[in-house]
Amino acid sequence: MENFRYETDLLGTLQVPADAYYGVQTQRAIDNFKISGQLLSSYPHFIHALAMVKKAAAKTNYELGLLDEEMNSLIGETCDEIMAGQLHDQFPIDMIQGGAGTSVNMNANEVIANRVLEKRGKVKGDYQFCSPNDQVNLSQSTNDAYPTAIKMALLNMNSELVEKLRKTISAFRAKGVEFSDVIKMGRTQLQDAVPMTLGQEFEAYAATLEEDISKLNSNAKLFVEINMGATAIGTGLNAPPGYARLCAKNLAKISGYPIVSAPNLVEATPDTGSYVIYSSAMKRLAVKLSKICNDLRLLSSGPRAGLFEINLPPMQPGSSIMPGKVNPVIPEVVNQVCFKVIGNDLTVTFAAEAGQLQLNVMEPVLSHSIMESINFLGNALDTLREKCITGITANREVCLYMVKHSIGIVTALNPYIGYKNSTEIAKEALETGKSVYNLVLEKGILSQEKLDEILDPANMLKPHNL
Amino acid sequence: MENFRYETDLLGTLQVPADAYYGVQTQRAIDNFKISGQLLSSYPHFIHALAMVKKAAAKTNYELGLLDEEMNSLIGETCDEIMAGQLHDQFPIDMIQGGAGTSVNMNANEVIANRVLEKRGKVKGDYQFCSPNDQVNLSQSTNDAYPTAIKMALLNMNSELVEKLRKTISAFRAKGVEFSDVIKMGRTQLQDAVPMTLGQEFEAYAATLEEDISKLNSNAKLFVEINMGATAIGTGLNAPPGYARLCAKNLAKISGYPIVSAPNLVEATPDTGSYVIYSSAMKRLAVKLSKICNDLRLLSSGPRAGLFEINLPPMQPGSSIMPGKVNPVIPEVVNQVCFKVIGNDLTVTFAAEAGQLQLNVMEPVLSHSIMESINFLGNALDTLREKCITGITANREVCLYMVKHSIGIVTALNPYIGYKNSTEIAKEALETGKSVYNLVLEKGILSQEKLDEILDPANMLKPHNL
Amino acid sequence: MENFRYETDLLGTLQVPADAYYGVQTQRAIDNFKISGQLLSSYPHFIHALAMVKKAAAKTNYELGLLDEEMNSLIGETCDEIMAGQLHDQFPIDMIQGGAGTSVNMNANEVIANRVLEKRGKVKGDYQFCSPNDQVNLSQSTNDAYPTAIKMALLNMNSELVEKLRKTISAFRAKGVEFSDVIKMGRTQLQDAVPMTLGQEFEAYAATLEEDISKLNSNAKLFVEINMGATAIGTGLNAPPGYARLCAKNLAKISGYPIVSAPNLVEATPDTGSYVIYSSAMKRLAVKLSKICNDLRLLSSGPRAGLFEINLPPMQPGSSIMPGKVNPVIPEVVNQVCFKVIGNDLTVTFAAEAGQLQLNVMEPVLSHSIMESINFLGNALDTLREKCITGITANREVCLYMVKHSIGIVTALNPYIGYKNSTEIAKEALETGKSVYNLVLEKGILSQEKLDEILDPANMLKPHNL
Amino acid sequence: MENFRYETDLLGTLQVPADAYYGVQTQRAIDNFKISGQLLSSYPHFIHALAMVKKAAAKTNYELGLLDEEMNSLIGETCDEIMAGQLHDQFPIDMIQGGAGTSVNMNANEVIANRVLEKRGKVKGDYQFCSPNDQVNLSQSTNDAYPTAIKMALLNMNSELVEKLRKTISAFRAKGVEFSDVIKMGRTQLQDAVPMTLGQEFEAYAATLEEDISKLNSNAKLFVEINMGATAIGTGLNAPPGYARLCAKNLAKISGYPIVSAPNLVEATPDTGSYVIYSSAMKRLAVKLSKICNDLRLLSSGPRAGLFEINLPPMQPGSSIMPGKVNPVIPEVVNQVCFKVIGNDLTVTFAAEAGQLQLNVMEPVLSHSIMESINFLGNALDTLREKCITGITANREVCLYMVKHSIGIVTALNPYIGYKNSTEIAKEALETGKSVYNLVLEKGILSQEKLDEILDPANMLKPHNL
Repeated sequence: MENFRYETDLLGTLQVPADAYYGVQTQRAIDNFKISGQLLSSYPHFIHALAMVKKAAAKTNYELGLLDEEMNSLIGETCDEIMAGQLHDQFPIDMIQGGAGTSVNMNANEVIANRVLEKRGKVKGDYQFCSPNDQVNLSQSTNDAYPTAIKMALLNMNSELVEKLRKTISAFRAKGVEFSDVIKMGRTQLQDAVPMTLGQEFEAYAATLEEDISKLNSNAKLFVEINMGATAIGTGLNAPPGYARLCAKNLAKISGYPIVSAPNLVEATPDTGSYVIYSSAMKRLAVKLSKICNDLRLLSSGPRAGLFEINLPPMQPGSSIMPGKVNPVIPEVVNQVCFKVIGNDLTVTFAAEAGQLQLNVMEPVLSHSIMESINFLGNALDTLREKCITGITANREVCLYMVKHSIGIVTALNPYIGYKNSTEIAKEALETGKSVYNLVLEKGILSQEKLDEILDPANMLKPHNL
Repeated sequence: MENFRYETDLLGTLQVPADAYYGVQTQRAIDNFKISGQLLSSYPHFIHALAMVKKAAAKTNYELGLLDEEMNSLIGETCDEIMAGQLHDQFPIDMIQGGAGTSVNMNANEVIANRVLEKRGKVKGDYQFCSPNDQVNLSQSTNDAYPTAIKMALLNMNSELVEKLRKTISAFRAKGVEFSDVIKMGRTQLQDAVPMTLGQEFEAYAATLEEDISKLNSNAKLFVEINMGATAIGTGLNAPPGYARLCAKNLAKISGYPIVSAPNLVEATPDTGSYVIYSSAMKRLAVKLSKICNDLRLLSSGPRAGLFEINLPPMQPGSSIMPGKVNPVIPEVVNQVCFKVIGNDLTVTFAAEAGQLQLNVMEPVLSHSIMESINFLGNALDTLREKCITGITANREVCLYMVKHSIGIVTALNPYIGYKNSTEIAKEALETGKSVYNLVLEKGILSQEKLDEILDPANMLKPHNL
Repeated sequence: MENFRYETDLLGTLQVPADAYYGVQTQRAIDNFKISGQLLSSYPHFIHALAMVKKAAAKTNYELGLLDEEMNSLIGETCDEIMAGQLHDQFPIDMIQGGAGTSVNMNANEVIANRVLEKRGKVKGDYQFCSPNDQVNLSQSTNDAYPTAIKMALLNMNSELVEKLRKTISAFRAKGVEFSDVIKMGRTQLQDAVPMTLGQEFEAYAATLEEDISKLNSNAKLFVEINMGATAIGTGLNAPPGYARLCAKNLAKISGYPIVSAPNLVEATPDTGSYVIYSSAMKRLAVKLSKICNDLRLLSSGPRAGLFEINLPPMQPGSSIMPGKVNPVIPEVVNQVCFKVIGNDLTVTFAAEAGQLQLNVMEPVLSHSIMESINFLGNALDTLREKCITGITANREVCLYMVKHSIGIVTALNPYIGYKNSTEIAKEALETGKSVYNLVLEKGILSQEKLDEILDPANMLKPHNL
Repeated sequence: MENFRYETDLLGTLQVPADAYYGVQTQRAIDNFKISGQLLSSYPHFIHALAMVKKAAAKTNYELGLLDEEMNSLIGETCDEIMAGQLHDQFPIDMIQGGAGTSVNMNANEVIANRVLEKRGKVKGDYQFCSPNDQVNLSQSTNDAYPTAIKMALLNMNSELVEKLRKTISAFRAKGVEFSDVIKMGRTQLQDAVPMTLGQEFEAYAATLEEDISKLNSNAKLFVEINMGATAIGTGLNAPPGYARLCAKNLAKISGYPIVSAPNLVEATPDTGSYVIYSSAMKRLAVKLSKICNDLRLLSSGPRAGLFEINLPPMQPGSSIMPGKVNPVIPEVVNQVCFKVIGNDLTVTFAAEAGQLQLNVMEPVLSHSIMESINFLGNALDTLREKCITGITANREVCLYMVKHSIGIVTALNPYIGYKNSTEIAKEALETGKSVYNLVLEKGILSQEKLDEILDPANMLKPHNL
């Protein structure tokens, strides 16, 4: 029994595994690109998106009279199967590849064609009854189908990322409420500043991340603009009039996103602007998350020789040599993911800048980097929320002790005795080790009653009348 | 005669030039930060913005009863003078500095205070009649006044940048019209693809850059959210209730921008998210501009051993050794500016990530990098438009010749003879050197009449019915 | 039957698969870090290196009297098994993790301990007979064992990378010889310059890459300096005197590399300088490779509307819509790998900068990024060599035609008629379309004989006497 | 009276200021490149290097019989004047420019030619008596003279940078000695680890930076390899045989550096590898310096709510609102310089990758970025040393207190009671607030005498026999 079948293309004849749904061009890609070992088959959103695009393309071809009803319906069924998670193992090519996505597009065309052949009772590879190029790819080019699929995948992946972000924000917000009465010293430039609550600090984490929901979403919205109908370079050669708009409409129906055709398809074909700025939005989120994790590690430093204002839930023994040590491993891993996202953003930048003339041939690494960042960030957000934030506790006494012994509270005296006099009190406190409170009393500058009111930390947490 | 006066602060007494409007803290900054040699005084938008902020702060203090009418009006007048371009030489401190902008804020406070003293007939440094801290800085901290001033400056700088971008887009668009009948080969992956017009190519440059107008503006819009009234860490200590909102309102009036108070001032104080994403938007513009300049250099390559589709206006002899050589120096310099902008974006990323707890102390280098990028990009856009785009001409015959001799036009045959047959024609054309046209006739596949219609490049520029 | 056993650590008791060689701390890491899905088990060099380190540590402990002969020999045997490729599936933890490598170190300690237990006929988890901490990790900390293992892995990985680079250089050099008589136009700033041979161009690719062999090797040499004996923070607490030097000596013997102990272990522990500069050396290689691939794509552009000086071997049909199109897919994929390496270098930079006080906790992502870059680069070099360079052919007539019709050859007239006169000839040639040769004759500036000699391209390929 | 003279080149006639030593091509560059406002005239090392190169070129031409003695000597004298600091104001062109340095090279050629004319009693611009191209630029091209000058400048600038680094290292080392008896807690992952001395910490700063001296120098050594004699593309067209080697020899004499000719000039001409890796070496230094400054800011945090182990010398009042606050402004500004260096390194990476075929046209921004980084880093090192390191003091009691109350010292018990028992002590100490010392005694695990010896921090600072 034969384990291979033979398929032929422009470059000659090649063996393809007999039972493979993919064909000769996929096989060439498998052979050509042994680079990262990270295969298309492990990016289900991407495969799902390819199926959506191919279904929409077929439907549009049918509606414009280029494809008959049976073929449209067979292609549509097959795409539905793929969207339902089937045949994903038939996409065995490396995510990092040359050819501007031709291998990915042909992989999809071949798998669909062979599944259609199967449905029609034909043998695999007998493309006269359904050709990857002439039917499945009809009115399309890799240069429109591939980036459109990337964008569809990113729309779905962004939705999932935002959902994870939203939950993480809620977790911070809940801690903001829980810690709303824990008074602590605020710090600027790592130096003692003035009092605040730990609740304000955590609520601020929630608030700053919340801005990134709309930032991610508004940038992801650029992905709804697609270039189906552009064919090779945006001039629409071989696509019938009206194809672009109708295909967008069909894809909108299939995907549930408000897909539209780009106003200028010659522009849209090589353009990578939406990827660049979406990656930037992720970078911004990474920068903020990294800052927050730096803070969490700093605030939980100690237990005896650090700030020790909060406790992170212990996740694992911290040292192979130091007994009892527990480290902030979860914020640490999130920091590292953030650095990875920032590095990927640079890869995206280089890939985008390398576009030439009517195409950007670097789209595979560009989309791979963005998808990797989304996956890593999503995992990091879940990990941070589940294994760290929700378990954080406050060391209330430690926090309060530092406020009481601080010099920074002298700031509250400014409106009463002026910046210059306050400065002298502060200086003396630092040099003598005395408290601000005692020094003011000692010098008879203010009555004890007035002083008690001014220096009550609770009065320093928001603007109030003098 | 004495050339110096003496001023005193927390750290002691220092000589200040007798006629300087700035005071002891500015002097310390001059001494401390000899880093880049790029001084605040060469960033007029920033100084202008500081004056707007100080005027708004004084007005708010007056309206809330903390400052008397005379003082408010003297401070206001002084700010108006600075906004009119006066006293800019009194800001001699390095843009890259420690202290999170305290030196910049105090520089402004001191200059304003001493100018007010002068107006009141007092000698410089006699701060009992107008104190940089107690009056000019009243209800403020560096941590709110400084980032607010940066944001005001960036709003104005962005407006100017966008205007330059708009003009550059118009120049590309005009060429798009001028070249609308120049038929040429489109190229994907640097390989011949299918025909298009040079006009479509230039119109696409206009179209892709146009998207960045809204991208820059929508991200600059984040700068209207300010944190005046936050004082040191966002809790508003020493600012009266209502200060934040009223100050934003006053600043809106003074600046003409729809300034609002950030909803969470504890969050807003250390947050650098708006800088990060605005820098990203500039990076996106830089990536696109760089790609366009790469294209312009490629399309004008030659004259005899390159593509030679277009001519850039000659700007200078191109070589000290090769006579007659003229190089694409303007796109080249724009490419380099783009690389600088991308580098600055990384500096911004590092600076943003380094924020800690209640403040980001790296704001000076962060704002310096953004302002440098805006300036460089603005200059590059003007240079590109004036010295390159408007003078570009097309080599029509060269463009047409390449289309006529191309193999890529075989694509138009797909709908008539199928992908597989077209492939064979293409292969034979490449191997024999024969034209696609003659091969099809030779083989009797299509009538000459039909072929003339299908292979007319003019029919390949947009979708059309078969 | 029970599928799990129970193990206990500082944080409590946990289920571990009954047949797993790893233990409770590895299990915690599996649970804690679901981030990248890229597991330690797919980095065989790293696991191999861990075994070398553990073997050296045990041997040193034995020689210093801290471990008995049997234990040393059992640990040594186990390490040999791992170095031979066994038990690699027992390292199932994510490469990106918190804890500064503690999980990796404990994973190794646990696997070795349980294998030793097995050899001794004990059940897994019965650590009184061989403790991961007290025996396998004796005189060590994660903070010395983990970075030492990374460095050992990188030494081996670098050797492999350099070997692949070496072969790629040979391939370029062979083409340099093959093309040594193909005369073509050199180009600067994409404008026609003066003649050269295609052989010189390919030999230059070999020459520039050759410099990176020594650059990679000289930077990899930094990895021979290790910090075994440093224990937790470099002070060597709990390691006996002499441990550091002896362990380095033992590791040298085991690994075959000239391993030495760092002169200052407190410095060496948090230091990531060797990683940073090795990553930079890879980045330099990536920058050069990317430039070369850009060149290959440019030189092979066409076939009819490009430079078309060389042909790359066709690897796959280039388009799903354009029949006969063949694209430079191999250089394209190499470009993309280069961008990935550059992005990873940025991740390394961030990770290195984030070190704090006595440790850099970001080492996992740092080492992961470097290892990924080595793997990707190695694959890209093999792919480039096998599937592209060796099959490149020259279009001799195209190359020669461009030289003959060029204006740049006018440069050779400078020494005879001066830069200014040459400039006028060049200008007239460009404007009239006449050849430089004919113009000089026409004007009677030089005799035909002299001119033939001067303008013979073969005379322009190297310095020669006038 | 006429303020202008007229000069003519390939593109026509232009006004040049009558008294300018520069000529028409410099004037075109002034007009063409209004980009950064950072002029060649503010980079004295670069101008000095240009003069060295031109002097060496003339001498070589003279020795090979291409230039007469008088001309050689006049050019030589003029170059000496420039090297002595004269005429630097005659280099008014923007550092960021197109044309791959042609403007810089011609600027030098023109200034030297006109100064020679002046010496010969001729009027400026009368180039028949000394031509910028035919005499000053004889046997050269921008493509060899310009990068050679950059390399000569960088050699000198590196020497100065290394000297500043050396002094900074000494300052750290001195503190290492001064603090050699200050016992403190070491920290890993920001969690308390085991004891060390503050001296060890500062000595480690010295030690880690010391490695960068050799790293900078070994990478700068690549700059001694130059491509004089390569002319336009490395083939040496119009340079006589022997020129390359002799010119290198002459430049070695003039500069004092061991200058050699690159073995392959076709490779050397577009190669930017030496810049890339030197910039990387600076980046490595920046990464380390930034980490150290982060540490200094962390260790000096407080005074009441931070670690407060050390005091940085106060440089300026730290706040416009918080009296008495003193911030770590010097480390802060150094951090920012480091971020700038890292950003510049990315610009260098992009510029290097953008090289095409026989030249890298992005050398201006590439060299500008490197020179800016050297200047900024040098200033930052001086500032850090003078205004921070030398004035640092230790808070001995604070340091000791934290050691005595730490749990981390339990690590020293491992060899006596095992990791598992130590873990339980640590856990109980943390939960009860009791000291490790008391807990061990309480439990009767070890005698007080033994315990005193084991837990003496002084015994934990280096390996010792049990």
